[in-house]
Amino acid sequence: MDLLLTNGLIVTMNREREVLAEADVLIQDGRIARLGRNIRTRGAGLRVLDVTGKVVLPGFIHGHLHACQTLFRNRADGLELLDWLRERIWPFEAGHDADSLRASADLTFAELIRSGATAALDMGTVRHYDTVFESARDCGFRLTGGKAMMDASDVPTGLHESTEASLAESLALLERWHGTHGGRLRYAFAPRFVLSCTEKLLKEVARLAREKGVRIHTHASENRTECDVVRERVGRDNIAYFHELGLTGPHVTLAHCVWPTEEERGLLRDSRTVVCHCPGSNLKLASGIAPVPELLDAGVTVCLGADGAPCNNNLDMFVEMRLAALLHKPRVGPRGMPPERVLEMATLGGARALGLEAEVGSLEEGKRADITVVDLSDLHSTPSDPRDVLSPLVYSAQSRDVVHVLIDGKLVLKDRVLLTLDAASVASSARQHAGRIASRTRR
Amino acid sequence: MDLLLTNGLIVTMNREREVLAEADVLIQDGRIARLGRNIRTRGAGLRVLDVTGKVVLPGFIHGHLHACQTLFRNRADGLELLDWLRERIWPFEAGHDADSLRASADLTFAELIRSGATAALDMGTVRHYDTVFESARDCGFRLTGGKAMMDASDVPTGLHESTEASLAESLALLERWHGTHGGRLRYAFAPRFVLSCTEKLLKEVARLAREKGVRIHTHASENRTECDVVRERVGRDNIAYFHELGLTGPHVTLAHCVWPTEEERGLLRDSRTVVCHCPGSNLKLASGIAPVPELLDAGVTVCLGADGAPCNNNLDMFVEMRLAALLHKPRVGPRGMPPERVLEMATLGGARALGLEAEVGSLEEGKRADITVVDLSDLHSTPSDPRDVLSPLVYSAQSRDVVHVLIDGKLVLKDRVLLTLDAASVASSARQHAGRIASRTRR
Repeated sequence: MDLLLTNGLIVTMNREREVLAEADVLIQDGRIARLGRNIRTRGAGLRVLDVTGKVVLPGFIHGHLHACQTLFRNRADGLELLDWLRERIWPFEAGHDADSLRASADLTFAELIRSGATAALDMGTVRHYDTVFESARDCGFRLTGGKAMMDASDVPTGLHESTEASLAESLALLERWHGTHGGRLRYAFAPRFVLSCTEKLLKEVARLAREKGVRIHTHASENRTECDVVRERVGRDNIAYFHELGLTGPHVTLAHCVWPTEEERGLLRDSRTVVCHCPGSNLKLASGIAPVPELLDAGVTVCLGADGAPCNNNLDMFVEMRLAALLHKPRVGPRGMPPERVLEMATLGGARALGLEAEVGSLEEGKRADITVVDLSDLHSTPSDPRDVLSPLVYSAQSRDVVHVLIDGKLVLKDRVLLTLDAASVASSARQHAGRIASRTRR
Repeated sequence: MDLLLTNGLIVTMNREREVLAEADVLIQDGRIARLGRNIRTRGAGLRVLDVTGKVVLPGFIHGHLHACQTLFRNRADGLELLDWLRERIWPFEAGHDADSLRASADLTFAELIRSGATAALDMGTVRHYDTVFESARDCGFRLTGGKAMMDASDVPTGLHESTEASLAESLALLERWHGTHGGRLRYAFAPRFVLSCTEKLLKEVARLAREKGVRIHTHASENRTECDVVRERVGRDNIAYFHELGLTGPHVTLAHCVWPTEEERGLLRDSRTVVCHCPGSNLKLASGIAPVPELLDAGVTVCLGADGAPCNNNLDMFVEMRLAALLHKPRVGPRGMPPERVLEMATLGGARALGLEAEVGSLEEGKRADITVVDLSDLHSTPSDPRDVLSPLVYSAQSRDVVHVLIDGKLVLKDRVLLTLDAASVASSARQHAGRIASRTRR
């Protein structure tokens, strides 16, 4: 059925960054058919959604996420990256079965949709990644994801896999899911990070990704100790090492990049690799503050992501946008990271992280109708300057302001109510499975 | 009427930091009469509020706030402190009349109550401070506040006042409001900051505060340029200068203290001066990151505050708590600023900032019933470790989770609805007055 959003304030994020007042969006076959003032249409099959006074913007896109970890929210405080992984996250992940992973994914997509996100680049745990795709398939979320690849000899038993098994399972998932559901579900190879992968695996992933035309999603230079250990193990810096192995390029998304060297900044720019800034996670794990304004100034593509619930502890683009806008200002000045730059990271940047910049990330005719409708009239955003909708969106809005969300033109949140997931049963199932895994791992 | 909260998870913040499961709170005459399991009471005049499964905690207390600036939210981005004041905030403040200030105060208290705050230490603009007290009087908020004092020769015309007039108006407000409404409204002298005050005024404020037994509330060492100008003007560092003039002590709250010298840290500790950490504001104005874990380790009392809406842009203790918990970790490690420390700042610390530690800040028998009830079962806080309620409160909860708020035992928010303010008319009035002031000042 066609859908017409009427009389909204449309933040297009098109090339001219137009903001259209009192404008309509006509959605046909999951795409934006027309966009502008006074769109008149005929036909019996038209549904109208009045969005008078509300802000209509491209759905947020998280460029780095771990849906499998959402069950471990609020259970992994006070640790730096490597301890956090070894003491909590890996044992928890090893405790997942298909059912618990499904519960974790359902909770993830429910929270993401409620906070205005329509797409994400996700890294799974080693096993059961089908269930994450199944969850996204069923709730209508736009997912690019892949199982974590962990074949290094010191990966703990519960997660360790052979190089061959890791590649075979990744390829099988790719075959089953990549490009399905109208292209809404896509595969991305996810070698976890240098320290969990053999060089053989990384090289083979680099080759296969090019051959199959899919993305690579991994972590780089998140934590200083990690950077030291990487340097010790492979004899060079993390991003430089990836570059040498073929793990850079516009089809690669590197999460974090908190500690890139001067040379690596150039590599990121020249190779057009996408960097995902995760400010909340980088603070919580005491990793540091990524030089994001500097990377952007150098011409690097940067997007935003919440990372995992246990290192955040929200999965909320409003929280990350606000933090990204504020965090760098003491270093680069009050005009550093203005709202327009931050919103670009959360929309167009995310689209690039998923390799979907031709399809989503802005509201333009022909693009897929991934749309978030926000009400900026609540007390905490009042008043605002009617000439500037971006400032309240980034500095004062909260996820509670998200009213409607559409993905592929389908309403998945309407009047703040999830339509494709039942919030109460999602929460209850998440609690049960989390409790079970925690008691199994004695946490 | 007596009120009984039943079956909650009570975060007492008492000396032992007890958390009581399935416990009740009996409120009589605005105070906590009893607190514990299975409280049985008789009498016709008892109202019962079932808070099963919810978290009951002391209402949040902002240690530094500018209710007069809430109308200027989202209208002062991209500026450092001194430019922000001169180019935006002072012209805006000078544009206030009594009606617009009332609108600003109503909006402030509405947002504060909705986000679980029950008290604040507020600094007004130079004029019309009666209306801020009137607003707090009418909505039931616990306010300690005072008019801004600005008698230095380079204060702009619209705000400048003589030393005598500043003192006289402050004293008149003190007479009219201090200790009224059962002690809920209290006066605090508010010399704005070194650069807006003559030394004569500061000395007189120091003397009068001791004589009258009221607090002093001012800003110190917020911005490096400001610190330089202060040093140039008065020949010493900001906090050291205040100390010399008698503007330190347990009855003094200094906002910010982002740049205290080693010597000044000792002065703050030894004089038992209260420091208010405003992490959101300090980032937005590019002021820096206050050395809060270090101050706390040194024994300084530190509380939390949202500062003003135009430099935040929320007035939301959940936002500040999360930020305070995360922001310092890259510097001091992942165990720096744990949830218990942050929650203490937001409750007991705030009580000290208002000089009300005997009355509020924790849930204990005999203390005033300033209580916030939070529902941690929503998706963005799910799951959580049932043994640890503080982690979700600080890291994942949001102000949307606040269900009920009581001040002096009176419900001011019930089932998320404001009872003493009408949200829609508060917002509409705020918009009108903000538009008027902005157009008057050509912003």
